[in-house]
Amino acid sequence: MPPTRAVVLLSGGLDSSTCLAIALSKGRDVLALTVDYGQRHRKEISAAKAVAKRLGVKEHKILKVDLAQFGGSALTDERIGVPTGRTEKEIGRGIPPTYVPARNTVLLSLAIAYAEAAGADEVYIAANFLDYSGYPDCRPEFFAIFREVARLGTKRGVEGRPTRIHTPLIRTRKADIVRTGAKLGVPFGLTWSCYHGRAKACGVCDSCKLRLKGFREAGLEDPLPYETPPKG
Amino acid sequence: MPPTRAVVLLSGGLDSSTCLAIALSKGRDVLALTVDYGQRHRKEISAAKAVAKRLGVKEHKILKVDLAQFGGSALTDERIGVPTGRTEKEIGRGIPPTYVPARNTVLLSLAIAYAEAAGADEVYIAANFLDYSGYPDCRPEFFAIFREVARLGTKRGVEGRPTRIHTPLIRTRKADIVRTGAKLGVPFGLTWSCYHGRAKACGVCDSCKLRLKGFREAGLEDPLPYETPPKG
Repeated sequence: MPPTRAVVLLSGGLDSSTCLAIALSKGRDVLALTVDYGQRHRKEISAAKAVAKRLGVKEHKILKVDLAQFGGSALTDERIGVPTGRTEKEIGRGIPPTYVPARNTVLLSLAIAYAEAAGADEVYIAANFLDYSGYPDCRPEFFAIFREVARLGTKRGVEGRPTRIHTPLIRTRKADIVRTGAKLGVPFGLTWSCYHGRAKACGVCDSCKLRLKGFREAGLEDPLPYETPPKG
Repeated sequence: MPPTRAVVLLSGGLDSSTCLAIALSKGRDVLALTVDYGQRHRKEISAAKAVAKRLGVKEHKILKVDLAQFGGSALTDERIGVPTGRTEKEIGRGIPPTYVPARNTVLLSLAIAYAEAAGADEVYIAANFLDYSGYPDCRPEFFAIFREVARLGTKRGVEGRPTRIHTPLIRTRKADIVRTGAKLGVPFGLTWSCYHGRAKACGVCDSCKLRLKGFREAGLEDPLPYETPPKG
């Protein structure tokens, strides 16, 4: 029997790269999908390409969808600031300006479209509920309902074999994501999590802070260079 | 109170143009959204532009999303043939090759993203259940579940005011869509329904056949020029 085919959403960050490694470790025939939705910087896209190549993904599509045309997020609109220097408690409170309207809905839609066209049975997305509790589209109930969308809104669903949507990291703490990634050989130095796109990661945006905390708690060193050296 | 703002998905066809006219007739402040998803021909896009302009829409965004990269549909892949000369009974049977994997899921995702970013309370989509019963993502139960996506997957939803998704034509017969459009001043001659993109509409693809039948039953003449003259 041929291996199960899976579409893996790959942003180029720590979580999605680990999610990709998980799908590969399960023997999946992986099609990686990176959505270039008009992020303020291009580092994520090049990180995704480098990670996919290093992990030996056979097919990697980069799809442009200019969500920046809509605006409404610090990640697609330079006029909206990215918060920096927030404490963990602050990061966990409310919906941050880095929320991109309906982003995971758009990403999953494209992933199930790709899966259906390519005959893939599964979609993997690295959403995490613990660290980004402020993002509505990272909650388990959102994914539960999206599974219904795959069942009702596609040909595969009508045929009784809807694309299965996997969220293997949904309840995994960042430190455990780092540990899993390390075990599976994720090239952390090629990934990019910082909300800015400068030569080095800033170290102080929400995403850098969560990442650094994850490495610290896992007792591992983040190979990425940082502008602000991580605190012990 | 300012008028309710609504995003209207506009493909440039008969149904979506009528749907747009319906939203305008209700006094909505309309933002039209056309998704250029890699259709084989460009006539739909220019039809959408012409219709939006004629009906006086203030903001009309054309968003490119290259679903043709995925393939899997006669509408995005020239190697897959568009069926022609089918009877009504044949048209209503099974999922046709013109089905674009997860198209309405992708369209609605983008519409709720746009709505959230632009502060719109409503999304209108011209899906029709009667004529295209073969398309899974035109069924009422699909839209019911997508309303849950808007509720669970967006900031607006979390705030208790999810974007409302309207399908005003979901159970309307084509002849009644034509009658409604005529009453509301839809410029039928600017719309485009044919699956081909030639100078004149072919008159024999499923979409032309349904459209011509609608006009015939409504007792109105379709102002579009056809290669194959419609039968009385």
